[in-house]
Amino acid sequence: MNSNQFRRDPISGRWTIIVQDKVQMKEFNLNQLTRKTKKRNEGHKDCRFCQGHERQTASEIFAIRNNSSAKDDSGWSVRVIPEQAHMLQIYGELNNRGVGMYDVLDGIGAHEIVIESPDHDVHISNMEEKQIEDVLRVYRERILDLKRDVRFRYVLLHKNYGDGSRETVDHSYSHIIATPITPTLVKAELVNAMEYYQYKERCVFCDMINQEITDDERIISQNDHFLAFSPFAARSPFEVWILPKKHETFFEWNTHQEPLAVILKEILNKITVTLNDPNFIMVLHSGPNIAAGKLRGYWRTLEKDYHWHMEITPRFRGVTSFEVGSGFQINQVPPEVAAKILREQEMS
Amino acid sequence: MNSNQFRRDPISGRWTIIVQDKVQMKEFNLNQLTRKTKKRNEGHKDCRFCQGHERQTASEIFAIRNNSSAKDDSGWSVRVIPEQAHMLQIYGELNNRGVGMYDVLDGIGAHEIVIESPDHDVHISNMEEKQIEDVLRVYRERILDLKRDVRFRYVLLHKNYGDGSRETVDHSYSHIIATPITPTLVKAELVNAMEYYQYKERCVFCDMINQEITDDERIISQNDHFLAFSPFAARSPFEVWILPKKHETFFEWNTHQEPLAVILKEILNKITVTLNDPNFIMVLHSGPNIAAGKLRGYWRTLEKDYHWHMEITPRFRGVTSFEVGSGFQINQVPPEVAAKILREQEMS
Repeated sequence: MNSNQFRRDPISGRWTIIVQDKVQMKEFNLNQLTRKTKKRNEGHKDCRFCQGHERQTASEIFAIRNNSSAKDDSGWSVRVIPEQAHMLQIYGELNNRGVGMYDVLDGIGAHEIVIESPDHDVHISNMEEKQIEDVLRVYRERILDLKRDVRFRYVLLHKNYGDGSRETVDHSYSHIIATPITPTLVKAELVNAMEYYQYKERCVFCDMINQEITDDERIISQNDHFLAFSPFAARSPFEVWILPKKHETFFEWNTHQEPLAVILKEILNKITVTLNDPNFIMVLHSGPNIAAGKLRGYWRTLEKDYHWHMEITPRFRGVTSFEVGSGFQINQVPPEVAAKILREQEMS
Repeated sequence: MNSNQFRRDPISGRWTIIVQDKVQMKEFNLNQLTRKTKKRNEGHKDCRFCQGHERQTASEIFAIRNNSSAKDDSGWSVRVIPEQAHMLQIYGELNNRGVGMYDVLDGIGAHEIVIESPDHDVHISNMEEKQIEDVLRVYRERILDLKRDVRFRYVLLHKNYGDGSRETVDHSYSHIIATPITPTLVKAELVNAMEYYQYKERCVFCDMINQEITDDERIISQNDHFLAFSPFAARSPFEVWILPKKHETFFEWNTHQEPLAVILKEILNKITVTLNDPNFIMVLHSGPNIAAGKLRGYWRTLEKDYHWHMEITPRFRGVTSFEVGSGFQINQVPPEVAAKILREQEMS
């Protein structure tokens, strides 16, 4: 008897195949899943993100510094620089236009790098909580600043830890990307949340939080302000979402940095310990840029229907042919199992 | 001056960044792009897809055979078997249901393998045209048969050539997957095509064909019945689409197998020669299953608004952090450049 399931994520509308089959579950082996594919870079003499190497990067856009230190010098705790190899440029008009039946915009955008610590060997999973609060504060400042630019419809923050991409720097850092178009995956969420609100007059994320607290099967951790759980239709084993329990549209509005720092560290620490330091992607989905949105008149119920959150997705393998062809992701560890394992994991 | 562009694909609604910048174009180097990552498997003594090894696979579902040959024996030109490691099972009810606010279906579906030739070393790029016609005929037969099952909303055919996934068999074959849910990427196209039709009362694919013939910049090849071009917002260098020039909703309705075989072989041959035998994915997007659709009452204008096509996408690299985070793909070879190169390439 096959007990695998198609499960639909109510946020994105995306379907995942959750493997529940007993036979296939036997094949689920934590050690096999988490076999380390790459030794992390341990030498860091040449890391241009480290303290003391500030002149090897482009000039900083923003930094949290002690009072006595100068721009592009030592003495910072979090530092933001432009990504030099990026495909988009910050200056210019969008020139939104049609070319025959096709739509074109000039390649305008911003791509910044947030260096999350002056130390090479420190990551959010083992950072001082005070330092994580600094990181969150910098995320907030940069998002607010980029949203002042009405050309940008969306500001996306993401972190790509490990060898899942071409990243070569093992220093802890994140990307902030501002684009004149809302990224496809975020737009699917925004539209879905709007349609849900129109039908139910409730925020789909708030409903999900209530459902998770009622079911109490997929929660990993919570405090007064935040909930961390593995979503019902998790795309990959041990996917975790962190949401504010109280409805809040924009990450930039969050005034509870300390409890967010605590739960974020806990989740990343538990994932690192349980899964043998896996590669992961962390994405922050906040509401879109109202300054650009007002111009367009979209998202009229946005403040009621959208709810910011973080998605943390470990990456264990490439995509299979089935996944590429069908678009259905296959998750071999049901979120109920993953949540139990992470819940019971001690922090290191 | 940055001349990169965001370009929107009118079919899927997806945006791609097309790199046009002169500086970055200098870095575009065909040899570097196409550096072979893996030597193809040359030994094939143990290939279970080869003629004479029929008993090493599951029993066949369908085959084109000479009259004197028996099932699961030699004497076939194209053979279809079930995928044994698949996650879905063919028997059972869908049990479409809600679990609290969430949606669940049992893991019902079909996953078949089409072995496209009894010979190990033959691929569509160098096959006899008669053999390709047999392959197309088998695609058609299997899609028609699977669509008789009202549980399946969609039947997807795809081919994953090379080491882009976990495939280990170098023998030429394709996957056919039937699922109770329309795959996300296909659904986006279906919805988009429907909305375009509602607004314009024209098929978006037919408009695209006219636009491409007018622009005459991205066409690679055409004959009386089919057009092959690199789409305006191509996701990857040298992406090619093949469409019937005359409006047709379903691949299964195609009565022009010979000109389709000719243009398909030409495109795959030119891609193989120009790009040094790259990995590629080929997907066939036909209309959804009407037998299931009628039950739902969706897609009322389907036959007018949707237009079947093949998408061939070479894969040269993994995704970058920017692409994972933003969902915008970056294409370093504008389709106008790719089309010119393929157009001028001699067949081997």
